[in-house]
Amino acid sequence: MTLDQIETPAALIDRPRMERNIARMQSRMDTLGVAFRPHVKTTKCVEVARAQRDAGARGITVSTLKEAEQFFAAGFSDILYAVGIVASKLPRALALRRAGCDLKLIVDNLEAAQAVAEFGRAYGETFEVWIEIDTDGHRSGVQPDESRLLDIGRMLHGDGEPHGARLGGVMTHAGSSYDLNTPDALAALAEQERAGCVRAAGRLRDAGLPCDVVSVGSTPTALAARHLEGVTEVRAGVYVFFDLVMRNVGVCATDDLALSVLTTVIGHQVDKGWAIVDAGWMAMSRDRGTAKQTHDYGYGQARMLDGAPLDGYMLTGANQEHGILANVDHRGGDVSVHLPVGTRLLILPNHACATGAQFPVYYARSEEGEVVVWGRFYGW
Amino acid sequence: MTLDQIETPAALIDRPRMERNIARMQSRMDTLGVAFRPHVKTTKCVEVARAQRDAGARGITVSTLKEAEQFFAAGFSDILYAVGIVASKLPRALALRRAGCDLKLIVDNLEAAQAVAEFGRAYGETFEVWIEIDTDGHRSGVQPDESRLLDIGRMLHGDGEPHGARLGGVMTHAGSSYDLNTPDALAALAEQERAGCVRAAGRLRDAGLPCDVVSVGSTPTALAARHLEGVTEVRAGVYVFFDLVMRNVGVCATDDLALSVLTTVIGHQVDKGWAIVDAGWMAMSRDRGTAKQTHDYGYGQARMLDGAPLDGYMLTGANQEHGILANVDHRGGDVSVHLPVGTRLLILPNHACATGAQFPVYYARSEEGEVVVWGRFYGW
Repeated sequence: MTLDQIETPAALIDRPRMERNIARMQSRMDTLGVAFRPHVKTTKCVEVARAQRDAGARGITVSTLKEAEQFFAAGFSDILYAVGIVASKLPRALALRRAGCDLKLIVDNLEAAQAVAEFGRAYGETFEVWIEIDTDGHRSGVQPDESRLLDIGRMLHGDGEPHGARLGGVMTHAGSSYDLNTPDALAALAEQERAGCVRAAGRLRDAGLPCDVVSVGSTPTALAARHLEGVTEVRAGVYVFFDLVMRNVGVCATDDLALSVLTTVIGHQVDKGWAIVDAGWMAMSRDRGTAKQTHDYGYGQARMLDGAPLDGYMLTGANQEHGILANVDHRGGDVSVHLPVGTRLLILPNHACATGAQFPVYYARSEEGEVVVWGRFYGW
Repeated sequence: MTLDQIETPAALIDRPRMERNIARMQSRMDTLGVAFRPHVKTTKCVEVARAQRDAGARGITVSTLKEAEQFFAAGFSDILYAVGIVASKLPRALALRRAGCDLKLIVDNLEAAQAVAEFGRAYGETFEVWIEIDTDGHRSGVQPDESRLLDIGRMLHGDGEPHGARLGGVMTHAGSSYDLNTPDALAALAEQERAGCVRAAGRLRDAGLPCDVVSVGSTPTALAARHLEGVTEVRAGVYVFFDLVMRNVGVCATDDLALSVLTTVIGHQVDKGWAIVDAGWMAMSRDRGTAKQTHDYGYGQARMLDGAPLDGYMLTGANQEHGILANVDHRGGDVSVHLPVGTRLLILPNHACATGAQFPVYYARSEEGEVVVWGRFYGW
């Protein structure tokens, strides 16, 4: 299949760029001496995860049990479910473990730790659980110096004999790295993320508790870290495609962006300098992550099919199936002549995870222009 | 099935509210003496569309050819595809027409009108086409007084003998109604929408062209219109569920909202007054439509399972699978005591079309609390 056979809107993967992004991250992790566990929530796509594994990744990270089930069915066994577990989700986790999946859970509170241990005992299963550490205050997790860290650790470890749970390690995610945009600030946050997680691991070990795994990461901190002493593995997701938010953060160039939305011009408002395209928010998502960054790209940056930037244009508005591509600097003459009805364009997204999630499939294009269809999962 | 058997996050429909919303709109259309053609892009759900049809709706409106195909397969034949057609999509439209679907297309430019007529002639099909009219400047359409309106009409009508296209009527959508919030302003825009579309129809007829259908609508203008003289049908979508944006527009009460997201508390940051829930942006969507309105609801308004508002709390942040439900007025004591881990809540969404689109299925709950699963389509 080639590009002109694809109906719009469509999610397009540039495979050479994706492979380059994968190789860059894996090489960095190899240099830093840590294992790499990609977060597959970005793509929810088996073919992409296989490319990550083939490049050297060990295990995957998922954001839903549906992802765990689908990737396990596709041959991935070492899976970290990186959202705090609650009691109601334990039956699905149990089913995965019993089917042979090496599923790890995370908790950041005593109630959840207790629920896992009790459920595991009741069903004769020993769940491997990691404790989520809060190293930047942006979301979930126990702070490295909180006393309850040890309480949770003891709840999971029990007396060391096999019971419903076992303490596998600690993990953290410095998601506030998305708010930064200088190499120094990113390196400092990477060090804060590393040091906080290593500190938590040290406290657990000092208390006589096991802590084999020390897992950290986000795309920006993974790429900014100067060393990862004490860390055993890194997790990152969006690096595989990158996006305009990451470009503003400063960890990639626009030419690294491997995901775009293929769209068609369906009409104009010539007086306003608007081309109307068939990529609205249903295609782009409602993500406006660049709105608060140094460069606001609206709903995405338009490019010609050959990749040339469409200077002066911005996707300023998005209804469900209509995007408004506005000639914001009012140059370039009649938009209906410049971009006639039927013109096909690419739109680079603000946030690859959100945009990808709007599509049932990706169209993955090789260097030679050949296109293959890769499915992706959705739902929970 | 009952509510406690549903895993979170999940999209929940309150059927009595939905039925009430459907009856309210249909009754209003009956009073105004017009046919009603609901826009099924909001739900993409056959069961909901059947309830609309059973209440008196005639035909449906769709935003994608995928919707047209799926609803046609489910027994709906009178379908308006309300996004400007382009040449590349005509083969799918042809396949639907040949299978017996009474599919109508829309255009707002001469190139598209010509493409339809030529394609129709080449394949021996007469496509019914309506002309999209721009009555409020918010997006697509030909303005009622533009000279090209007649050019497009003549291109579609030809010499009146069967050829590749036929002019079925005019349609408009005053989408800027979402930016208003007073009854008088809404009524004024409804009149502007009506008058502009009727004016366009009059110009076509004065030029000797047929214009049987005069189709207008958006949820706010449909509910605000004081009369619809010259209009033959109205279209509206989001009224079936309503949402917080519509509540701010002033066309519904919070107790009319029929769609909510069922979520579970998975952790806390007690010092910050945060409960972390398992409804992030993947569940709620990234839609922040209330941000620019009089009442900003963040990513949604939380309610207890019995529907009681969770006063003082707001879903202030959303990561992919984490929502931050913050006690924004810092009252109410320890959030982990008030909303312990495992607590289930409902989140009313900003924008029902965007939130619904994140889920593969709806859980539809009856007055008696019985829950059934309704599928929904996605993709293009």
